[in-house]
Amino acid sequence: MPRPDARAHDQLRPVTITRNWQKYAEGSALVQFGDTSVLCSASVQQGVPRWRKGSGLGWVTAEYSMLPRATLTRNDRESVKGKIGGRTHEISRLIGRSLRAAIDLAALGENSISLDCDVLQADGGTRTAAITGAYVALADAVSWLDAKGALARPKPLINSISAVSVGVIDGEPRLDLMYEEDVRAETDMNVVVTGTGEFVEVQGTAEGVPFRRDELDALLDLAVAGCAQLTTLQRDALGA
Amino acid sequence: MPRPDARAHDQLRPVTITRNWQKYAEGSALVQFGDTSVLCSASVQQGVPRWRKGSGLGWVTAEYSMLPRATLTRNDRESVKGKIGGRTHEISRLIGRSLRAAIDLAALGENSISLDCDVLQADGGTRTAAITGAYVALADAVSWLDAKGALARPKPLINSISAVSVGVIDGEPRLDLMYEEDVRAETDMNVVVTGTGEFVEVQGTAEGVPFRRDELDALLDLAVAGCAQLTTLQRDALGA
Amino acid sequence: MPRPDARAHDQLRPVTITRNWQKYAEGSALVQFGDTSVLCSASVQQGVPRWRKGSGLGWVTAEYSMLPRATLTRNDRESVKGKIGGRTHEISRLIGRSLRAAIDLAALGENSISLDCDVLQADGGTRTAAITGAYVALADAVSWLDAKGALARPKPLINSISAVSVGVIDGEPRLDLMYEEDVRAETDMNVVVTGTGEFVEVQGTAEGVPFRRDELDALLDLAVAGCAQLTTLQRDALGA
Amino acid sequence: MPRPDARAHDQLRPVTITRNWQKYAEGSALVQFGDTSVLCSASVQQGVPRWRKGSGLGWVTAEYSMLPRATLTRNDRESVKGKIGGRTHEISRLIGRSLRAAIDLAALGENSISLDCDVLQADGGTRTAAITGAYVALADAVSWLDAKGALARPKPLINSISAVSVGVIDGEPRLDLMYEEDVRAETDMNVVVTGTGEFVEVQGTAEGVPFRRDELDALLDLAVAGCAQLTTLQRDALGA
Amino acid sequence: MPRPDARAHDQLRPVTITRNWQKYAEGSALVQFGDTSVLCSASVQQGVPRWRKGSGLGWVTAEYSMLPRATLTRNDRESVKGKIGGRTHEISRLIGRSLRAAIDLAALGENSISLDCDVLQADGGTRTAAITGAYVALADAVSWLDAKGALARPKPLINSISAVSVGVIDGEPRLDLMYEEDVRAETDMNVVVTGTGEFVEVQGTAEGVPFRRDELDALLDLAVAGCAQLTTLQRDALGA
Amino acid sequence: MPRPDARAHDQLRPVTITRNWQKYAEGSALVQFGDTSVLCSASVQQGVPRWRKGSGLGWVTAEYSMLPRATLTRNDRESVKGKIGGRTHEISRLIGRSLRAAIDLAALGENSISLDCDVLQADGGTRTAAITGAYVALADAVSWLDAKGALARPKPLINSISAVSVGVIDGEPRLDLMYEEDVRAETDMNVVVTGTGEFVEVQGTAEGVPFRRDELDALLDLAVAGCAQLTTLQRDALGA
Repeated sequence: MPRPDARAHDQLRPVTITRNWQKYAEGSALVQFGDTSVLCSASVQQGVPRWRKGSGLGWVTAEYSMLPRATLTRNDRESVKGKIGGRTHEISRLIGRSLRAAIDLAALGENSISLDCDVLQADGGTRTAAITGAYVALADAVSWLDAKGALARPKPLINSISAVSVGVIDGEPRLDLMYEEDVRAETDMNVVVTGTGEFVEVQGTAEGVPFRRDELDALLDLAVAGCAQLTTLQRDALGA
Repeated sequence: MPRPDARAHDQLRPVTITRNWQKYAEGSALVQFGDTSVLCSASVQQGVPRWRKGSGLGWVTAEYSMLPRATLTRNDRESVKGKIGGRTHEISRLIGRSLRAAIDLAALGENSISLDCDVLQADGGTRTAAITGAYVALADAVSWLDAKGALARPKPLINSISAVSVGVIDGEPRLDLMYEEDVRAETDMNVVVTGTGEFVEVQGTAEGVPFRRDELDALLDLAVAGCAQLTTLQRDALGA
Repeated sequence: MPRPDARAHDQLRPVTITRNWQKYAEGSALVQFGDTSVLCSASVQQGVPRWRKGSGLGWVTAEYSMLPRATLTRNDRESVKGKIGGRTHEISRLIGRSLRAAIDLAALGENSISLDCDVLQADGGTRTAAITGAYVALADAVSWLDAKGALARPKPLINSISAVSVGVIDGEPRLDLMYEEDVRAETDMNVVVTGTGEFVEVQGTAEGVPFRRDELDALLDLAVAGCAQLTTLQRDALGA
Repeated sequence: MPRPDARAHDQLRPVTITRNWQKYAEGSALVQFGDTSVLCSASVQQGVPRWRKGSGLGWVTAEYSMLPRATLTRNDRESVKGKIGGRTHEISRLIGRSLRAAIDLAALGENSISLDCDVLQADGGTRTAAITGAYVALADAVSWLDAKGALARPKPLINSISAVSVGVIDGEPRLDLMYEEDVRAETDMNVVVTGTGEFVEVQGTAEGVPFRRDELDALLDLAVAGCAQLTTLQRDALGA
Repeated sequence: MPRPDARAHDQLRPVTITRNWQKYAEGSALVQFGDTSVLCSASVQQGVPRWRKGSGLGWVTAEYSMLPRATLTRNDRESVKGKIGGRTHEISRLIGRSLRAAIDLAALGENSISLDCDVLQADGGTRTAAITGAYVALADAVSWLDAKGALARPKPLINSISAVSVGVIDGEPRLDLMYEEDVRAETDMNVVVTGTGEFVEVQGTAEGVPFRRDELDALLDLAVAGCAQLTTLQRDALGA
Repeated sequence: MPRPDARAHDQLRPVTITRNWQKYAEGSALVQFGDTSVLCSASVQQGVPRWRKGSGLGWVTAEYSMLPRATLTRNDRESVKGKIGGRTHEISRLIGRSLRAAIDLAALGENSISLDCDVLQADGGTRTAAITGAYVALADAVSWLDAKGALARPKPLINSISAVSVGVIDGEPRLDLMYEEDVRAETDMNVVVTGTGEFVEVQGTAEGVPFRRDELDALLDLAVAGCAQLTTLQRDALGA
């Protein structure tokens, strides 16, 4: 069975990262994995939340959201429903944790960076695209702080971070699932990896049938290889 | 005093309308007035809300929202705050009322169209840009219904609708205020006009000093002329 | 077609303003426009909201609400629904903006005045009645502050403010619509005017058919004349 | 120690009940106990809540609320806070339970009556005033249903209901506490009594010092005598 | 008619109080009245709420809740519904008021004690069981503060507090109703009593038929006798 | 460095599963991993949510919550805060997904089972204890349905499910972390495994330093061995 877009099983969709997409944010990137499109902004605020004051440590947090018609059928806004759904909470927490692994919070000093990841269009892999784009926005926000002389110590960015989804479809491990594949996957895994190939998050879920250790291993191999390519694209976008 | 971007007092900012910006929506447009950028989607749903069932009439509704970092400094998400603010409510209602004036709800039949207007970047005039863009998305959604044979009667679009902000700055009436002008305006007015130059909404507010009848008249003249240009741009975008 | 209560098209309903209707409020008025009855209270609080501290400026804010059975059929309470509706938000904001035009906030000094407008009975024109009554309550609250020596400068009241609704019914412009007219109006306009006849707010809405410039002009004429009468009634109520 | 308004310990404040205070409600009464003033409306709705359908039984429910400036200092609106406080819930439930004791729900048939009790001014005893006034509104709503031929059986009103507060101040049992007494009471009791002198609710609370059986007995005696007078006033108001 | 569990009309169910059921709380007790089982925790926090700071007085507050499947059929969680129901509010307030009668808040000093009463299983009388158990948890929390030397004055516990439900079933007054009796009771009363037999709260409700003074008296007699037994069990649990 | 309770690195804490802890639930279990104690209830409801009606498939859902004083210091209730936190949402979803892997929803037929997991005391590993206990409650609820003849097909339980946490502390992989270890872990992983040793969920998080593939492998080995022991304990509890 070929993939819906005829990719090889270990091939990413076309990925583009457009840096500085927004005018006001201290860092921003529009990231696209095929038809998935996520706008990532990094907003710097002086100071940290009250419970962290005086610690000398900075803070990085993230919020994920989807436009109502990012998807095949329209979803009601969470602002209108008056509460945030479990999926949104879960993904926002994942993005925040992942990006905190990129940064030495002591070097950041008592500054806060908010990462907003808004999905403009969703065709699978929105959370991993968000992480990949948010890293670029974060890097620019850190540079902005550096240029202001507002860091506690130089070089707070200690890891580059990228992420990709992998899954098993019809028994075949595949890299970077699009929506049509995602809904049919037997196993679905999101993997967050550093630029040097170590793991920050591994979240694997059996959607129908429990998975074996060898399947898990094959998926991790695919993800690590995919993230290596994403790391290069991030570096290019940042002109580094 | 020249305007911040050196425009004439009766000149619009560069306006672009990118039709079909989204993949899944039945109609969509990215509308830009200078640095103001609003993504407008029209989503069709078969049927109408319960209180309208059996009336034979369709329904058009709108929701307006802003990305957290569309603005100079970051705003908290209304979904996180758990409630929608008064300004958002007010603008959503204005957009909905304005676009309902575009359409013969009996001809639409028992179909619902949701207009989502998400501000990606805000530099003044977001609500009027949203109305102008939402008309294009609405027109495409109506065509989509027509192509499906789902309309109750042909040609439900009875008016084209566009909108613009006008205001008095330093005693001078000006067309299409950008943010820097908006915060300094003595009087601020949003005007929604049909393609044939009649009024759908007139909302004028004295920000500091009450305004005279002659000032009101001058602002209305500017707005009507500006909307005539927007009507042409909408027609071009729709390829009509 | 005569009006339901046989008034002339440019005639107000019987209007009464009962000052000091409440015992504890620093200013209060029960205002009646025919069967529409709104209780307006002004509550003084020392100090201003946090974001305004140290500015030397005062603050005036308003909240509008309706008793569940003010209307023909019962409406659920917003406190029970757990959120405030768009209409309530919109009207509260209108009242607040309108009354802030009455007052020099620097002269008020760092004092806050809350205007509560609770509709006890609704027969059309509740928001404009609320503005008209709230001005009387506000004036008394300012006098109360003056008597306490708590103003930053004398005479913070710089404009008197009144408001009225106007509309086009069966092609005829009419002053001060009652509910039965309001629901049939082709165009509906709320106009807030100073005691010297200048505009504070003009909010016109095409309910069915877009309106022409000459209709707009006729409605504004009616509104200005009506507000002149209301200004006299306010002055009488205040014994000035 | 004389009472603040020089009443005898077993004397009610001046009580007035103004029937049909509102225009649209099927029953309404403005009830005043001295400076305490509560507007009570009874709204009839055909049918009963879903969980009660098909039972043949009607439903009576109540909601209590206070205007923000009914009190000495302004209270925030529960609609603005987005939730109903414990005190409001507790009183609404008490009013509902008390008035359901007035009525044979089988004779009422599958009709719902909502009792809204809005405190316009509060000087102690608002919940008991609300119960006393709500009975009058309820009686009129029942008559309205009777006149429509909408009752399941004649005479659903089986008890008249009134209520009063009593308390111990400086060791002395007193009837109908005003606010100044209420805050100083050692024991505070709200008693709901039928027209024939039986108990519907007895809610006694030791505010500071636990109370003895003989104090409880003295308070109940006062309450029963006070309610007998209220029953007469209700009968007069209803012209029965 | 014998009682469902064949008890005498003036007999308590088997009552057990297991002290220190939880590991972290400063005081805790699992209290069981037959199949009713409530876990009561007392949590000490240094300091008092803002509105009480500098008063020298402590604060005691309570929250009551039920596990979803404490009952015959599952109830939705209030956290999921997003608001607390009236019944929960009412009972939480009753427990807080009752336990504040146990303590001299000046002797407690500026310390706060939160009493959490979570119903693990419900077979009638949960609020009175909660009060009875919360007293034991409170006493231990006070001892904990004493051992820390954190009290303002010695011996802040001035009353022991217990509570029981009583009711009239088939005309017979009964002590300590189980659920099956509770739903059939004509009159239902919750009585909170000190260790010396004085009243803290008396809450009697006619569920169907209003009740007479002699019925009220019989119920109070039963409750006082039942609470005397509970006082002994509390003393035993506390090893005092 | 020995573990705080001197266990071997691959040793579980003492685990007990008390079946049928509650009276009313169709299945229930109190599960304890050392001082962690979770009450798991399974509630059966006939029918499925609206969006699933007519599908022939059943539904299994889960809610996780913690008593306020399950922890070292008291946490505010989510019902009082009016919203569910991200952590609660995330864990509830994990439990639900994990237990749905236990069951053939077509064989279950159009029945719903709600799994409530309430943490009575928390000393690390609450989510994995909850999954382990919920399986026992679920199995009993399925038996209850079977006894009623309400299953669509026999034997809907297709996998037994257990879960355990593992982590790296001071470079050493450890099984079943207690709270004191959990806060110090460099890597933290929750693993859900079937009775036959396949994976249902793998969630690994780098708390400070990213982790290597060999560390991941060692943690998975520990988890699979731990779950094998838990499977035996579940089987014993179920008397199977």
